[in-house]
Amino acid sequence: MSYKVKASLSNKHMHLKEEDIEALFGKGYKLTVSKNLLQPGQFACEEKVDVVGPKGTLKGLRVLGPARPETQVELAMTDARAIGIKVPLRESGKLEGTPGCKLVGPAGEVVLSHGVIAALRHVHLSAAQAAEAGVKDKEFVSLRLGGERGLVFDRVLIRAGDAHEKEAHLDTDEGNAAMCDADAVAELIK
Amino acid sequence: MSYKVKASLSNKHMHLKEEDIEALFGKGYKLTVSKNLLQPGQFACEEKVDVVGPKGTLKGLRVLGPARPETQVELAMTDARAIGIKVPLRESGKLEGTPGCKLVGPAGEVVLSHGVIAALRHVHLSAAQAAEAGVKDKEFVSLRLGGERGLVFDRVLIRAGDAHEKEAHLDTDEGNAAMCDADAVAELIK
Repeated sequence: MSYKVKASLSNKHMHLKEEDIEALFGKGYKLTVSKNLLQPGQFACEEKVDVVGPKGTLKGLRVLGPARPETQVELAMTDARAIGIKVPLRESGKLEGTPGCKLVGPAGEVVLSHGVIAALRHVHLSAAQAAEAGVKDKEFVSLRLGGERGLVFDRVLIRAGDAHEKEAHLDTDEGNAAMCDADAVAELIK
Repeated sequence: MSYKVKASLSNKHMHLKEEDIEALFGKGYKLTVSKNLLQPGQFACEEKVDVVGPKGTLKGLRVLGPARPETQVELAMTDARAIGIKVPLRESGKLEGTPGCKLVGPAGEVVLSHGVIAALRHVHLSAAQAAEAGVKDKEFVSLRLGGERGLVFDRVLIRAGDAHEKEAHLDTDEGNAAMCDADAVAELIK
Protein backbone atom coordinates (compact mmCIF):
# COMPACT_ATOMS: atom_id res chain seq x y z
CA MET A 1 0.00 0.00 0.00
CA SER A 2 1.36 3.43 -0.86
CA TYR A 3 -0.16 6.55 0.69
CA LYS A 4 1.41 10.01 0.39
CA VAL A 5 1.57 12.56 3.22
CA LYS A 6 3.05 16.06 3.33
CA ALA A 7 6.00 16.11 5.75
CA SER A 8 6.10 19.23 7.94
CA LEU A 9 9.09 20.17 10.07
CA SER A 10 8.33 21.35 13.58
CA ASN A 11 10.93 23.79 14.80
CA LYS A 12 11.39 23.96 18.56
CA HIS A 13 8.25 25.43 20.15
CA MET A 14 5.98 25.30 23.16
CA HIS A 15 2.38 24.95 24.25
CA LEU A 16 1.37 26.90 27.39
CA LYS A 17 -1.33 26.49 30.01
CA GLU A 18 -3.40 29.58 30.91
CA GLU A 19 -1.63 30.11 34.24
CA ASP A 20 1.80 30.13 32.55
CA ILE A 21 0.56 32.50 29.80
CA GLU A 22 -0.38 34.98 32.55
CA ALA A 23 2.88 34.48 34.43
CA LEU A 24 4.95 35.07 31.28
CA PHE A 25 2.88 37.79 29.56
CA GLY A 26 0.74 39.40 32.29
CA LYS A 27 -2.60 38.98 34.07
CA GLY A 28 -5.52 38.32 31.72
CA TYR A 29 -3.23 38.04 28.68
CA LYS A 30 -4.57 36.27 25.58
CA LEU A 31 -2.37 34.73 22.86
CA THR A 32 -2.27 36.48 19.49
CA VAL A 33 -2.81 34.37 16.36
CA SER A 34 0.04 34.78 13.88
CA LYS A 35 -0.89 31.98 11.48
CA ASN A 36 -3.35 29.13 11.46
CA LEU A 37 -1.77 25.70 11.22
CA LEU A 38 -3.01 22.78 9.15
CA GLN A 39 -4.21 20.92 12.25
CA PRO A 40 -7.79 22.06 13.01
CA GLY A 41 -7.94 24.84 15.65
CA GLN A 42 -4.15 25.01 16.08
CA PHE A 43 -2.22 28.22 15.43
CA ALA A 44 1.24 29.76 15.65
CA CYS A 45 1.26 32.79 17.95
CA GLU A 46 3.07 36.11 17.79
CA GLU A 47 4.40 35.38 21.29
CA LYS A 48 7.90 34.04 21.90
CA VAL A 49 9.51 32.79 25.11
CA ASP A 50 13.12 32.03 26.11
CA VAL A 51 13.90 28.54 27.38
CA VAL A 52 16.68 28.31 29.97
CA GLY A 53 18.51 25.07 30.80
CA PRO A 54 21.53 24.29 33.00
CA LYS A 55 24.00 25.13 30.23
CA GLY A 56 22.37 27.89 28.22
CA THR A 57 19.34 29.61 26.78
CA LEU A 58 17.34 29.07 23.59
CA LYS A 59 16.05 32.52 22.66
CA GLY A 60 12.59 33.26 21.35
CA LEU A 61 10.79 29.92 21.01
CA ARG A 62 7.46 30.25 19.25
CA VAL A 63 4.30 29.63 21.29
CA LEU A 64 1.64 27.50 19.59
CA GLY A 65 -2.00 27.99 20.56
CA PRO A 66 -4.57 27.46 21.88
CA ALA A 67 -3.74 27.13 25.58
CA ARG A 68 -3.40 23.54 26.79
CA PRO A 69 -4.06 21.81 30.12
CA GLU A 70 -0.29 21.42 30.65
CA THR A 71 2.71 23.39 29.44
CA GLN A 72 4.90 21.41 27.03
CA VAL A 73 8.23 22.44 25.49
CA GLU A 74 9.20 20.52 22.33
CA LEU A 75 12.91 20.56 21.50
CA ALA A 76 14.96 18.64 18.98
CA MET A 77 17.66 16.65 20.78
CA THR A 78 20.31 18.95 19.28
CA ASP A 79 18.54 21.99 20.82
CA ALA A 80 18.11 20.28 24.19
CA ARG A 81 21.75 19.21 24.39
CA ALA A 82 22.87 22.77 23.62
CA ILE A 83 21.26 23.98 26.87
CA GLY A 84 22.22 20.92 28.94
CA ILE A 85 18.91 19.03 28.94
CA LYS A 86 18.81 15.30 28.22
CA VAL A 87 15.41 15.11 26.62
CA PRO A 88 13.27 11.96 26.39
CA LEU A 89 11.30 10.91 23.32
CA ARG A 90 7.60 11.28 24.12
CA GLU A 91 4.19 11.43 22.57
CA SER A 92 2.62 14.87 22.97
CA GLY A 93 0.95 15.19 26.39
CA LYS A 94 2.81 12.27 28.00
CA LEU A 95 4.85 14.40 30.36
CA GLU A 96 5.29 12.25 33.48
CA GLY A 97 8.93 12.02 34.49
CA THR A 98 10.17 14.47 31.86
CA PRO A 99 12.77 17.15 32.69
CA GLY A 100 11.86 20.77 33.40
CA CYS A 101 13.40 24.11 32.49
CA LYS A 102 12.90 27.81 33.12
CA LEU A 103 10.74 29.91 30.78
CA VAL A 104 11.34 33.65 30.51
CA GLY A 105 8.70 35.93 29.03
CA PRO A 106 8.33 39.72 28.88
CA ALA A 107 6.31 39.89 32.11
CA GLY A 108 7.84 37.15 34.21
CA GLU A 109 9.32 33.69 34.55
CA VAL A 110 8.00 30.18 35.10
CA VAL A 111 10.05 27.30 36.52
CA LEU A 112 8.75 24.04 35.07
CA SER A 113 9.36 20.89 37.11
CA HIS A 114 8.66 18.84 33.96
CA GLY A 115 7.34 19.21 30.42
CA VAL A 116 10.37 19.21 28.09
CA ILE A 117 10.22 16.50 25.40
CA ALA A 118 11.51 15.47 22.01
CA ALA A 119 8.31 14.75 20.08
CA LEU A 120 7.64 11.24 18.88
CA ARG A 121 7.36 11.54 15.10
CA HIS A 122 3.77 11.10 13.98
CA VAL A 123 1.25 11.37 11.18
CA HIS A 124 -2.03 13.24 11.65
CA LEU A 125 -4.97 11.81 9.68
CA SER A 126 -8.67 12.52 9.80
CA ALA A 127 -10.89 9.49 10.40
CA ALA A 128 -11.67 9.34 6.67
CA GLN A 129 -7.99 9.67 5.70
CA ALA A 130 -7.02 6.91 8.15
CA ALA A 131 -9.63 4.65 6.60
CA GLU A 132 -8.32 5.49 3.12
CA ALA A 133 -4.73 4.75 4.22
CA GLY A 134 -5.81 1.57 5.98
CA VAL A 135 -4.35 2.55 9.36
CA LYS A 136 -5.74 3.09 12.88
CA ASP A 137 -5.15 5.65 15.62
CA LYS A 138 -2.13 4.69 17.83
CA GLU A 139 -0.74 2.31 15.20
CA PHE A 140 2.95 2.58 14.28
CA VAL A 141 3.93 2.82 10.61
CA SER A 142 7.03 3.73 8.58
CA LEU A 143 7.58 6.82 6.43
CA ARG A 144 9.84 6.91 3.38
CA LEU A 145 11.44 10.16 2.24
CA GLY A 146 13.38 10.34 -1.02
CA GLY A 147 16.17 12.55 -2.27
CA GLU A 148 19.88 12.91 -1.62
CA ARG A 149 19.49 11.94 2.03
CA GLY A 150 16.60 9.54 1.52
CA LEU A 151 15.63 7.31 4.45
CA VAL A 152 12.81 5.35 6.01
CA PHE A 153 11.66 6.41 9.47
CA ASP A 154 10.32 3.44 11.45
CA ARG A 155 8.22 3.81 14.63
CA VAL A 156 6.04 6.65 13.35
CA LEU A 157 2.82 7.05 15.36
CA ILE A 158 -0.56 7.44 13.67
CA ARG A 159 -2.77 10.06 15.34
CA ALA A 160 -6.12 9.72 13.65
CA GLY A 161 -9.53 11.25 14.31
CA ASP A 162 -11.58 14.28 13.50
CA ALA A 163 -9.25 16.70 15.30
CA HIS A 164 -6.57 15.76 12.74
CA GLU A 165 -5.74 16.57 9.13
CA LYS A 166 -3.29 14.73 6.86
CA GLU A 167 0.27 15.80 7.73
CA ALA A 168 3.44 14.12 9.02
CA HIS A 169 5.33 15.94 11.78
CA LEU A 170 9.10 15.58 12.09
CA ASP A 171 11.45 17.65 14.20
CA THR A 172 14.42 19.59 12.82
CA ASP A 173 16.95 16.82 13.58
CA GLU A 174 14.80 14.39 11.64
CA GLY A 175 14.15 16.87 8.84
CA ASN A 176 17.88 17.60 8.47
CA ALA A 177 18.79 13.91 8.59
CA ALA A 178 16.43 13.44 5.63
CA MET A 179 17.33 16.82 4.06
CA CYS A 180 13.63 17.64 3.75
CA ASP A 181 12.52 20.89 2.29
CA ALA A 182 9.22 22.60 3.04
CA ASP A 183 7.48 20.74 0.23
CA ALA A 184 8.63 17.24 1.14
CA VAL A 185 6.18 14.41 0.63
CA ALA A 186 6.54 11.15 2.51
CA GLU A 187 5.23 7.75 1.63
CA LEU A 188 3.40 5.99 4.46
CA ILE A 189 4.37 2.31 4.67
CA LYS A 190 2.45 -0.21 6.74
CA MET B 1 22.96 -10.26 3.64
CA SER B 2 23.35 -8.84 7.15
CA TYR B 3 26.58 -7.18 8.21
CA LYS B 4 26.98 -5.21 11.46
CA VAL B 5 28.91 -1.95 11.78
CA LYS B 6 29.50 0.33 14.78
CA ALA B 7 27.78 3.68 14.21
CA SER B 8 29.87 6.66 15.34
CA LEU B 9 28.49 10.16 15.62
CA SER B 10 30.67 12.94 14.24
CA ASN B 11 30.12 16.18 16.10
CA LYS B 12 30.85 19.35 14.12
CA HIS B 13 34.59 19.55 13.48
CA MET B 14 37.21 20.66 10.98
CA HIS B 15 40.29 19.52 9.08
CA LEU B 16 42.95 22.17 8.44
CA LYS B 17 45.68 22.64 5.85
CA GLU B 18 49.18 23.53 7.11
CA GLU B 19 48.90 27.16 6.03
CA ASP B 20 45.67 27.62 7.99
CA ILE B 21 47.11 25.88 11.08
CA GLU B 22 49.90 28.48 11.08
CA ALA B 23 47.48 31.36 10.49
CA LEU B 24 45.24 30.26 13.36
CA PHE B 25 47.82 29.02 15.88
CA GLY B 26 51.13 30.65 14.90
CA LYS B 27 54.15 30.13 12.64
CA GLY B 28 55.55 26.59 12.70
CA TYR B 29 52.71 25.33 14.92
CA LYS B 30 52.06 21.57 15.03
CA LEU B 31 48.72 20.01 16.04
CA THR B 32 48.61 18.21 19.42
CA VAL B 33 47.11 14.69 19.46
CA SER B 34 44.31 14.41 22.02
CA LYS B 35 43.00 10.98 21.05
CA ASN B 36 43.58 8.56 18.20
CA LEU B 37 40.47 7.80 16.17
CA LEU B 38 39.44 4.41 14.84
CA GLN B 39 40.32 5.41 11.27
CA PRO B 40 44.04 4.64 10.69
CA GLY B 41 46.28 7.69 11.23
CA GLN B 42 43.39 10.01 12.13
CA PHE B 43 43.27 11.81 15.49
CA ALA B 44 41.29 14.34 17.48
CA CYS B 45 43.43 17.32 18.44
CA GLU B 46 43.58 19.46 21.57
CA GLU B 47 43.10 22.50 19.32
CA LYS B 48 39.73 24.21 18.89
CA VAL B 49 38.65 26.96 16.50
CA ASP B 50 35.60 29.23 16.33
CA VAL B 51 33.52 29.18 13.13
CA VAL B 52 31.85 32.46 12.20
CA GLY B 53 28.93 32.71 9.76
CA PRO B 54 26.70 35.59 8.70
CA LYS B 55 24.33 35.07 11.65
CA GLY B 56 26.52 33.87 14.47
CA THR B 57 29.46 31.90 15.81
CA LEU B 58 29.95 28.26 16.71
CA LYS B 59 32.50 28.29 19.52
CA GLY B 60 35.34 25.83 19.90
CA LEU B 61 35.03 23.31 17.10
CA ARG B 62 37.45 20.42 17.47
CA VAL B 63 40.25 20.13 14.91
CA LEU B 64 40.90 16.61 13.56
CA GLY B 65 44.38 15.72 12.35
CA PRO B 66 46.57 15.19 10.50
CA ALA B 67 46.75 18.31 8.29
CA ARG B 68 44.99 17.94 4.94
CA PRO B 69 45.58 19.45 1.49
CA GLU B 70 42.43 21.58 1.91
CA THR B 71 40.65 23.00 4.94
CA GLN B 72 37.19 21.46 5.43
CA VAL B 73 34.57 22.39 8.04
CA GLU B 74 31.94 19.71 8.70
CA LEU B 75 28.71 20.97 10.24
CA ALA B 76 25.36 19.32 10.83
CA MET B 77 22.64 21.23 9.01
CA THR B 78 21.22 22.37 12.37
CA ASP B 79 24.62 23.89 13.27
CA ALA B 80 25.05 25.54 9.88
CA ARG B 81 21.58 27.09 9.94
CA ALA B 82 22.26 28.53 13.40
CA ILE B 83 25.09 30.68 11.97
CA GLY B 84 23.32 31.48 8.70
CA ILE B 85 25.06 29.06 6.35
CA LYS B 86 23.08 26.93 3.90
CA VAL B 87 25.31 23.93 3.76
CA PRO B 88 25.39 21.38 0.93
CA LEU B 89 25.63 17.62 1.38
CA ARG B 90 29.06 16.50 0.18
CA GLU B 91 31.50 13.66 0.27
CA SER B 92 34.62 14.57 2.23
CA GLY B 93 37.09 16.45 0.02
CA LYS B 94 34.54 17.44 -2.66
CA LEU B 95 34.60 21.13 -1.87
CA GLU B 96 34.02 22.84 -5.24
CA GLY B 97 31.20 25.36 -4.99
CA THR B 98 30.70 25.01 -1.24
CA PRO B 99 30.16 28.03 1.02
CA GLY B 100 32.90 29.57 3.12
CA CYS B 101 33.10 31.03 6.63
CA LYS B 102 35.56 32.75 8.93
CA LEU B 103 37.75 30.72 11.31
CA VAL B 104 39.07 32.34 14.48
CA GLY B 105 41.97 30.79 16.38
CA PRO B 106 44.16 32.03 19.24
CA ALA B 107 46.79 33.54 16.94
CA GLY B 108 44.73 34.79 14.01
CA GLU B 109 41.87 34.42 11.59
CA VAL B 110 41.31 32.75 8.24
CA VAL B 111 38.59 33.69 5.77
CA LEU B 112 37.59 30.60 3.78
CA SER B 113 36.05 31.17 0.35
CA HIS B 114 34.72 27.59 0.45
CA GLY B 115 35.02 24.38 2.44
CA VAL B 116 31.90 24.16 4.64
CA ILE B 117 29.92 20.93 4.12
CA ALA B 118 27.42 18.58 5.70
CA ALA B 119 29.12 15.21 5.39
CA LEU B 120 27.58 12.52 3.26
CA ARG B 121 26.92 9.60 5.61
CA HIS B 122 29.31 6.77 4.96
CA VAL B 123 30.76 3.47 6.11
CA HIS B 124 34.50 2.92 6.36
CA LEU B 125 35.65 -0.64 5.63
CA SER B 126 39.09 -2.13 5.09
CA ALA B 127 39.52 -4.01 1.83
CA ALA B 128 39.06 -7.32 3.69
CA GLN B 129 35.94 -6.06 5.51
CA ALA B 130 34.42 -4.83 2.25
CA ALA B 131 34.99 -8.25 0.72
CA GLU B 132 33.39 -9.88 3.77
CA ALA B 133 30.39 -7.52 3.53
CA GLY B 134 30.15 -8.03 -0.22
CA VAL B 135 30.38 -4.32 -1.05
CA LYS B 136 32.73 -2.14 -3.08
CA ASP B 137 34.30 1.29 -2.62
CA LYS B 138 31.95 4.12 -3.82
CA GLU B 139 28.87 1.85 -3.70
CA PHE B 140 25.75 3.14 -1.92
CA VAL B 141 24.06 0.93 0.68
CA SER B 142 21.44 1.33 3.41
CA LEU B 143 21.97 1.23 7.18
CA ARG B 144 19.32 0.08 9.65
CA LEU B 145 19.36 1.34 13.23
CA GLY B 146 16.96 -0.09 15.81
CA GLY B 147 15.46 1.26 19.03
CA GLU B 148 12.78 3.82 19.92
CA ARG B 149 13.64 5.99 16.93
CA GLY B 150 14.64 3.16 14.62
CA LEU B 151 15.11 3.98 10.95
CA VAL B 152 16.84 2.96 7.74
CA PHE B 153 19.26 5.44 6.20
CA ASP B 154 19.40 5.05 2.42
CA ARG B 155 22.17 6.57 0.25
CA VAL B 156 25.05 5.64 2.57
CA LEU B 157 28.43 5.71 0.81
CA ILE B 158 30.92 2.87 1.16
CA ARG B 159 34.52 4.08 1.56
CA ALA B 160 36.63 0.96 1.37
CA GLY B 161 40.35 0.37 1.23
CA ASP B 162 43.35 -0.08 3.45
CA ALA B 163 43.17 3.46 4.87
CA HIS B 164 39.80 2.50 6.40
CA GLU B 165 38.54 0.48 9.38
CA LYS B 166 34.96 -0.75 9.97
CA GLU B 167 32.84 2.15 11.25
CA ALA B 168 29.76 4.07 10.07
CA HIS B 169 29.89 7.86 10.36
CA LEU B 170 26.71 9.85 10.94
CA ASP B 171 26.43 13.50 11.93
CA THR B 172 24.59 14.73 15.02
CA ASP B 173 21.33 15.46 13.16
CA GLU B 174 21.32 11.90 11.86
CA GLY B 175 22.34 10.45 15.22
CA ASN B 176 19.58 12.37 17.01
CA ALA B 177 17.00 11.42 14.39
CA ALA B 178 17.87 7.78 15.10
CA MET B 179 18.42 8.41 18.86
CA CYS B 180 21.77 6.64 18.64
CA ASP B 181 23.92 6.28 21.69
CA ALA B 182 27.69 5.88 21.63
CA ASP B 183 27.41 2.09 21.38
CA ALA B 184 24.94 1.95 18.51
CA VAL B 185 25.36 -0.82 15.99
CA ALA B 186 23.93 -0.53 12.49
CA GLU B 187 23.05 -3.25 10.05
CA LEU B 188 24.40 -2.73 6.56
CA ILE B 189 21.81 -3.57 3.90
CA LYS B 190 22.66 -3.99 0.23
